[in-house]
Amino acid sequence: MTDLTKQMLEKLNEFFEEEKLLNHAAHVVQFDMETVCPPKGMELAGETQAYLSNKIFKIHRDPNFLVAAGWLYDHRDELDVYDRALAEQLHREDMKIRNITPEQDREFSKVYNKAYAAWLKAKQSSDFSQFAPSLSAVRDVEFKRVELMDEKSPVLYDNLLDTYERGMTSEKLDEVFGKCRSRLVPLLKKIMASKKVIRTDFLNREVDDRAQEKAVKYLLDTIGFDFERGGFSTTEHPFTDSMGPDDERVTTHFYPTNFLSSMYSTVHEGGHALFDQNQPREHWIHNITDGKTMGQHESVSRFYENIIGRSEAFIHLIFPKIQEIFGDVLSDVTEREFYEAVNYVSPSCIRTEADEFTYIFHIMIRYEIEKAIVAGGVSIDDLPKIWNDTYEEYLGIRPADDADGVLQDVHWTSGFGYFPTYALGNMYNAMYRNRMREEFDVDAAVAAGDFGKINGWMKEHVWKKADLLAPAEWIRDITGRELTPDDFLDYLEEKYSKLYEL
Amino acid sequence: MTDLTKQMLEKLNEFFEEEKLLNHAAHVVQFDMETVCPPKGMELAGETQAYLSNKIFKIHRDPNFLVAAGWLYDHRDELDVYDRALAEQLHREDMKIRNITPEQDREFSKVYNKAYAAWLKAKQSSDFSQFAPSLSAVRDVEFKRVELMDEKSPVLYDNLLDTYERGMTSEKLDEVFGKCRSRLVPLLKKIMASKKVIRTDFLNREVDDRAQEKAVKYLLDTIGFDFERGGFSTTEHPFTDSMGPDDERVTTHFYPTNFLSSMYSTVHEGGHALFDQNQPREHWIHNITDGKTMGQHESVSRFYENIIGRSEAFIHLIFPKIQEIFGDVLSDVTEREFYEAVNYVSPSCIRTEADEFTYIFHIMIRYEIEKAIVAGGVSIDDLPKIWNDTYEEYLGIRPADDADGVLQDVHWTSGFGYFPTYALGNMYNAMYRNRMREEFDVDAAVAAGDFGKINGWMKEHVWKKADLLAPAEWIRDITGRELTPDDFLDYLEEKYSKLYEL
Repeated sequence: MTDLTKQMLEKLNEFFEEEKLLNHAAHVVQFDMETVCPPKGMELAGETQAYLSNKIFKIHRDPNFLVAAGWLYDHRDELDVYDRALAEQLHREDMKIRNITPEQDREFSKVYNKAYAAWLKAKQSSDFSQFAPSLSAVRDVEFKRVELMDEKSPVLYDNLLDTYERGMTSEKLDEVFGKCRSRLVPLLKKIMASKKVIRTDFLNREVDDRAQEKAVKYLLDTIGFDFERGGFSTTEHPFTDSMGPDDERVTTHFYPTNFLSSMYSTVHEGGHALFDQNQPREHWIHNITDGKTMGQHESVSRFYENIIGRSEAFIHLIFPKIQEIFGDVLSDVTEREFYEAVNYVSPSCIRTEADEFTYIFHIMIRYEIEKAIVAGGVSIDDLPKIWNDTYEEYLGIRPADDADGVLQDVHWTSGFGYFPTYALGNMYNAMYRNRMREEFDVDAAVAAGDFGKINGWMKEHVWKKADLLAPAEWIRDITGRELTPDDFLDYLEEKYSKLYEL
Repeated sequence: MTDLTKQMLEKLNEFFEEEKLLNHAAHVVQFDMETVCPPKGMELAGETQAYLSNKIFKIHRDPNFLVAAGWLYDHRDELDVYDRALAEQLHREDMKIRNITPEQDREFSKVYNKAYAAWLKAKQSSDFSQFAPSLSAVRDVEFKRVELMDEKSPVLYDNLLDTYERGMTSEKLDEVFGKCRSRLVPLLKKIMASKKVIRTDFLNREVDDRAQEKAVKYLLDTIGFDFERGGFSTTEHPFTDSMGPDDERVTTHFYPTNFLSSMYSTVHEGGHALFDQNQPREHWIHNITDGKTMGQHESVSRFYENIIGRSEAFIHLIFPKIQEIFGDVLSDVTEREFYEAVNYVSPSCIRTEADEFTYIFHIMIRYEIEKAIVAGGVSIDDLPKIWNDTYEEYLGIRPADDADGVLQDVHWTSGFGYFPTYALGNMYNAMYRNRMREEFDVDAAVAAGDFGKINGWMKEHVWKKADLLAPAEWIRDITGRELTPDDFLDYLEEKYSKLYEL
């Protein structure tokens, strides 16, 4: 490394030293808003948030920052693997936003914020027409954003996708979802026609917060969450947030008559948290922890939630303890009945309530529709009908109204391209699950509660390089293969054929 | 107001606009550290705290800030009552710190931080000699700080006192505490000799967190805490923190076998919170909410905790509900027995566990000793013996070791002059209690749960001018009289003579 490159790196690290602290403060204020801030305290908290975000934004637009980042990218061959990854990350970020003026940025934010407010109102009155103009405006902003990008793909939608899942294309997704559709739609029909009876009567029995809290803490502890380096809180909508290398927050919500909700949302968020808690320390030091994609992160949370969490081995491990914590609630339920209940397939209109099997259908539907919106192949006004028709076609059910249909998710208020990452997570984790099974008996490790073994393997194979490699290279690095939905489809088919005695 | 003065005021308000947000972030990070931050997340949180504090510090040392503040102080006659109060506050602050260089400031902080660490270790091993050198160093820093002050009193200790209780002098305190000592020491002896039997057997019965939480929320609600503009959390050491005009946080700690602890600490903290929630909005707008003293704030918290909270009228109001919330725990206890138990006098070595009657003894002892330390009248090494002898003389008990004696409180790690504010709170509130009773039947209002009446009076008489007037003027404004301990002593004598049938 030349002296000048070294100086540029030092300069950049100074900026990041300040960003680290501003970012930490912003995360804490956000977390506070989501967990304990009283209603009328929100306004000031929002102002503080905006102030801190603006400070961070200004760092990344500071001429000295940009000069240093540019220099490092041009001289990236002189850098070690971490600093090189940082230079590349900053370059990609810069390509996306360099031509956006501060005025445009504010204007875009206004459109997204207005869309959010309109969506909230429209959803409350279950009337899509109130949201339609805002959705058009969001689409226009997305077009404008892509127009202003440097180094972009000719396929408009792919540039939006790339923001959340680096390097992913609609060509690849069409192939992936095409295979999913052709195997899963008929399989769902068979499941629905199955005579298999699954007990679900006990799922709505009342369990108080205290017992649910005890259960979810036990689950976090079981999968290896480090409470010395992480906290647990309650909130309206469960999420995970990383405050820093040694401070990972998991949240959940307790519903008195739906204990599975807090249990599985916690295992899901716990998966995100394990990923964050087990990142190489070097990634924090070199400020590259934002290098991983949504799909990579979601693959891990769904690995713990579904592949591990809804397996026979896991239920065998946890059932006695859950039964004990819940007192009389599960006294007439067998381990097998509990396993079947957590895997009960029931098509519903609401994505966030979907079971493991039908979840992917919700994503396929959203992907098809948002791709068509961006391509201009549909009229915004027709969306409620298109949405409902597609639900009927794929899942055999029809949403009762817009609130349960096209208005159910908040995501489109801030643009397009996010939804596919949820499904990609399933493809990735089914692939690395098979790789893991080549090395040791995963079910035996789970049944024995040996999460040291599982997390150790994840750390070495899945977590270590997520910030360094684009998802396509990363899954190839782990499995030696290209991204394919086959592993996921095989996994579902095998599991659910057995469960539903097909 | 001249144009220039107006410009200076606008300049200053710009600085405060940023300080408000930095300050909010700093408070939220601090609150997070005290409530949910995991052990290993503390280091980064501490760094963020230091960063934000330094930002605020820099604002107050910014030449443009100082010029504007100086101008406004010199032209304070042109200002309205609020801006004038601000100019005076800033002037007082400046007089205290203007000659301290940033290097000296860092050096002082180091001494305080080192003292804190040494105290923690010394307390753990109950060995004062490990803390003695640090205490000497703290004393030297305090001397140095006073030496660097402008506009100071010739009495060294008074300058320290003034930091916490503006305008208070040791001459006045000697008079106040002298009277307290001469009336309370013999009265305590009589109480101890009384044949009156007070039931306390039920105070250590187990009450789970859930029931305690329900009880304390009921108490906060009862005294008029606004949950739309405030939150409630648990923490190791109860405190109240104001995040902003519409966000007041109260915390408590639940001990399974000491329900009175969470109940009364919550009423105490709730008193602080009521004060903050009922400040005039103008005080926030004009950035003068730091104008009130520790003694003023403590007078309010102790008013709600003791004068109201431990009165027969309050017990009459809350007992049925507490009994109901605690289930069987209080089923064999009468209202009268409960009232007597919450007022049970029991000299102990630990200040924070003291009952209403003996609390003042702990403060008198600390005042005498810290005044002697500052005056150089005692050798630091002799403190454990002096401490224990004074406890024996005043309270008739002798601490078993240094941890329960001279090392029990953290306060001296950051200097001297704070303790007296705890006692002054009692003097002030007994005085305004009498004033309030001249206007309406306070006990009747409490018994009827009419806190609108009580808080309305407090708002009008006690809270409205606390940021504007020095405590001496403020108590004169409320009561028409000079500060005196007589009201407090009369109150104690009347209440406890009756209770103990003297």
